[in-house]
Amino acid sequence: MFKKVLIANRGEIAIRVMRACRELGISTVAVCSEADKNALFAKYADEAYLIGPAPSSQSYLNMEAILAVAKSTGAEAIHPGYGFLSENPVFAKRCEEEGIVFIGPPSHVIAEMGSKIRARNLMMKAGVPVVPGTKDAVEDPVEAVKIAEEIGYPVLIKASAGGGGIGMKVVDSSDELAAALSSTRQMAGSAFGDSSVFIEKYVEEPRHIEIQILADGYGNTIYLSDRECSIQRRHQKLIEEAPSPIMTPELRAQMGEAAVRVAKTIGYVNAGTVEFLYSKGNFYFLEVNTRLQVEHGITEMVTGVDIVREQLRIAWGEKLEFNQEDIIIDGHSIECRINAEDPLNDFAPSPGKIRGYRSAGGPGVRVDSGVHTGYTISPYYDSMISKLCVWAKTRDVAIARMERALYEYVVVGVKTNIPFHKAVMRNPAFRRGDLTTAFIEDHNILEAVEEVVKADAEKGATLASALQAKDKKVAAITAAVHAYVSMAQNTQR
Amino acid sequence: MFKKVLIANRGEIAIRVMRACRELGISTVAVCSEADKNALFAKYADEAYLIGPAPSSQSYLNMEAILAVAKSTGAEAIHPGYGFLSENPVFAKRCEEEGIVFIGPPSHVIAEMGSKIRARNLMMKAGVPVVPGTKDAVEDPVEAVKIAEEIGYPVLIKASAGGGGIGMKVVDSSDELAAALSSTRQMAGSAFGDSSVFIEKYVEEPRHIEIQILADGYGNTIYLSDRECSIQRRHQKLIEEAPSPIMTPELRAQMGEAAVRVAKTIGYVNAGTVEFLYSKGNFYFLEVNTRLQVEHGITEMVTGVDIVREQLRIAWGEKLEFNQEDIIIDGHSIECRINAEDPLNDFAPSPGKIRGYRSAGGPGVRVDSGVHTGYTISPYYDSMISKLCVWAKTRDVAIARMERALYEYVVVGVKTNIPFHKAVMRNPAFRRGDLTTAFIEDHNILEAVEEVVKADAEKGATLASALQAKDKKVAAITAAVHAYVSMAQNTQR
Repeated sequence: MFKKVLIANRGEIAIRVMRACRELGISTVAVCSEADKNALFAKYADEAYLIGPAPSSQSYLNMEAILAVAKSTGAEAIHPGYGFLSENPVFAKRCEEEGIVFIGPPSHVIAEMGSKIRARNLMMKAGVPVVPGTKDAVEDPVEAVKIAEEIGYPVLIKASAGGGGIGMKVVDSSDELAAALSSTRQMAGSAFGDSSVFIEKYVEEPRHIEIQILADGYGNTIYLSDRECSIQRRHQKLIEEAPSPIMTPELRAQMGEAAVRVAKTIGYVNAGTVEFLYSKGNFYFLEVNTRLQVEHGITEMVTGVDIVREQLRIAWGEKLEFNQEDIIIDGHSIECRINAEDPLNDFAPSPGKIRGYRSAGGPGVRVDSGVHTGYTISPYYDSMISKLCVWAKTRDVAIARMERALYEYVVVGVKTNIPFHKAVMRNPAFRRGDLTTAFIEDHNILEAVEEVVKADAEKGATLASALQAKDKKVAAITAAVHAYVSMAQNTQR
Repeated sequence: MFKKVLIANRGEIAIRVMRACRELGISTVAVCSEADKNALFAKYADEAYLIGPAPSSQSYLNMEAILAVAKSTGAEAIHPGYGFLSENPVFAKRCEEEGIVFIGPPSHVIAEMGSKIRARNLMMKAGVPVVPGTKDAVEDPVEAVKIAEEIGYPVLIKASAGGGGIGMKVVDSSDELAAALSSTRQMAGSAFGDSSVFIEKYVEEPRHIEIQILADGYGNTIYLSDRECSIQRRHQKLIEEAPSPIMTPELRAQMGEAAVRVAKTIGYVNAGTVEFLYSKGNFYFLEVNTRLQVEHGITEMVTGVDIVREQLRIAWGEKLEFNQEDIIIDGHSIECRINAEDPLNDFAPSPGKIRGYRSAGGPGVRVDSGVHTGYTISPYYDSMISKLCVWAKTRDVAIARMERALYEYVVVGVKTNIPFHKAVMRNPAFRRGDLTTAFIEDHNILEAVEEVVKADAEKGATLASALQAKDKKVAAITAAVHAYVSMAQNTQR
């Protein structure tokens, strides 16, 4: 096994990877920005090096500085986590050139999947269902109108190089098409350096369902669990669960086998996720995430497989230890992403110092966090401070457990989206498993959040507020108790 | 289901029970001593009442005060946790008299199992193997010598009413017997109000293996997992695991069926544990713990069953939701009891203020704790502040995971036994699964603890020390890194 691995990331995911490394006896190297010199992940590592100022372009995206630390410390491999350089084919290539193992798929696979147009065409060839749309980039407005009419409105104009919901526009009629085409091309060009866009059918009220896969270097490719990730704001996932409430063994086999076909078609190696849209009994290939996902933990909870451990083993050249038949889905798992943000102020980030922090815990609860009491959340990075996952035998109990965990999770000093998660857990449609990617809007969740915040403040119905109320919570022995005690004592005499 | 339950306990176990209550929608009532007015469990409850001064006799053992709070708050049931009143048949009886459900077996079952002599005789009748010894209490030294010679030295003189290792004496020869008999009788009389003692064969180098059972009120009794609890100091368990490293499906079925026979023989209802000694292929009934055990969490981790939830369901009158066939042991779980104590000073308690606290977390880690940053550990109670449990597919990975979790568990301000646990995890005999109740002495664990403490201090090889070392951990960009970066940049130009 590797002796030393560099983790080219920060926060909770850097710690997640280091945990797997420690358990495998691998020494860890952290790289950090000036803003992260006191961050937990830098302390957690066996060695930590400053690579530059806070803006990511000068630190976490600074390929050469990261490679230089890897070379000078003798790290044999780099784990990129998610975000930052994790899906950057140039970085994967540079690692390959320097003889450092990039823990992920080969650079050409990342490059291929980075072009949505190429990915779509590959999938069609492999017989994997894709949303109806164009095979090639579209430039001409007249051609675009023709295509859109064939497909039927509404359609989606999508940047080929896009991701994270950026570079997408829904178009309802031919009147809007030309303008939308031109603006999306412009945005794609400036955001991704590639102005190619394509047109596909806009799937209305879809579910976002994805399949986690693992592939070793010997042709063994399996699927683990499915995950339902429909609860999103601005295309950012907030709550995920495994399995999807609509999943059946038949559908899982169908989607799982499609995902494996995708992986085999493109020569995938390591862990990855094949994302699908699901609507009215049909599923359509959306994209491949060629890296570890934020939400991998819920798959770990229902399968017992440690995905990061497997990533390290596969990268080292080992075979998968299990076959498809060994993967059994046990129970139900839900993840809430705990962000330092204000759900009632358009989810605006809420950086600052955490004055009080205590993880939720106990049975069936897993917390992956990068913070602690006294930690200062930097404004420079993503607002996610931890992932709260629960497991239980059934979905109903998992929801009750998540509500319990949200009650007891103490984060004082910054605003968090905990009230948002409470509101979703209490929502009848969520409880029934009735989910679409428009869930937050369709169910007026923000109004419900407002009520949660108000009720929590009035009743002090959180462990955090009880903890801050010194001495106030405990009632003195009441007259009634006194009366009972003396009565009982008299009776005994 | 119950609407309101009173938890007659404190610390982590009170929280454990409240967690299950919250998940079932049950409102919770805490009772606390003056020393615990600011304790987390009192804050966690929906209502909390002061019942008396710090000494347990005046608060947590004050049956009438607890019953009075239950009556005046309308609590329908009392969960006693472990310790305190949990195995007190008088308290269970008083609950029954007051029409309050005692969450545990009927009072007469507790009473019967409280007498080790009666329990032994019942087990023999039921065909459950017991350690060879006397059927009745022994008073006469001459008779005692006769019995001991029949059994063969060494023998154990044991108080019938004893528990927790108190009131036991090993006797190696007839010379010592009369004096030991008399002193054990005396101690038993003063400690338990019952001077009856009996004699049994002293099983040398045994393992302590126990079986968790669940029985509903409809005659359904099943066994969950076995647990190995051999790592003890002064008969107090410190590390437990499930399953035992020596367990086979056949042995588990044998011991499990014996445990179920025990439970059925005595009309057991609710959760309980049947403890056995195991030596050289044989197992012997030791005692029944008629309550929730500290170490129930590792059974929850390998079976997926929430034992406290089942206790509440059974007490409410529901049937078990599963049969013996549904119980599948998946993977391996280990618990380390984290005590505020100094393993290098004879495990002396280390009460005081916790200045820094951060739970271990991430995959396969469960923490049940009653503390937080700023919490003051009281000198009045047991020194256990939390239970650190891990789960993994195999025992080897579980050990690696526990080492990782011990590395990252931050408790600053009081001494803890974390170095003790590290020393055990690293011990080759432990890693082989070679365990006996004399493990700590046989393997000079205390010397190894000393080395761990020294090495951790020298290398700062704990997350706690890294966190305290402000800014010191992160190395600046080294000359070597600079050289690489500029070289790479030059190459690119």
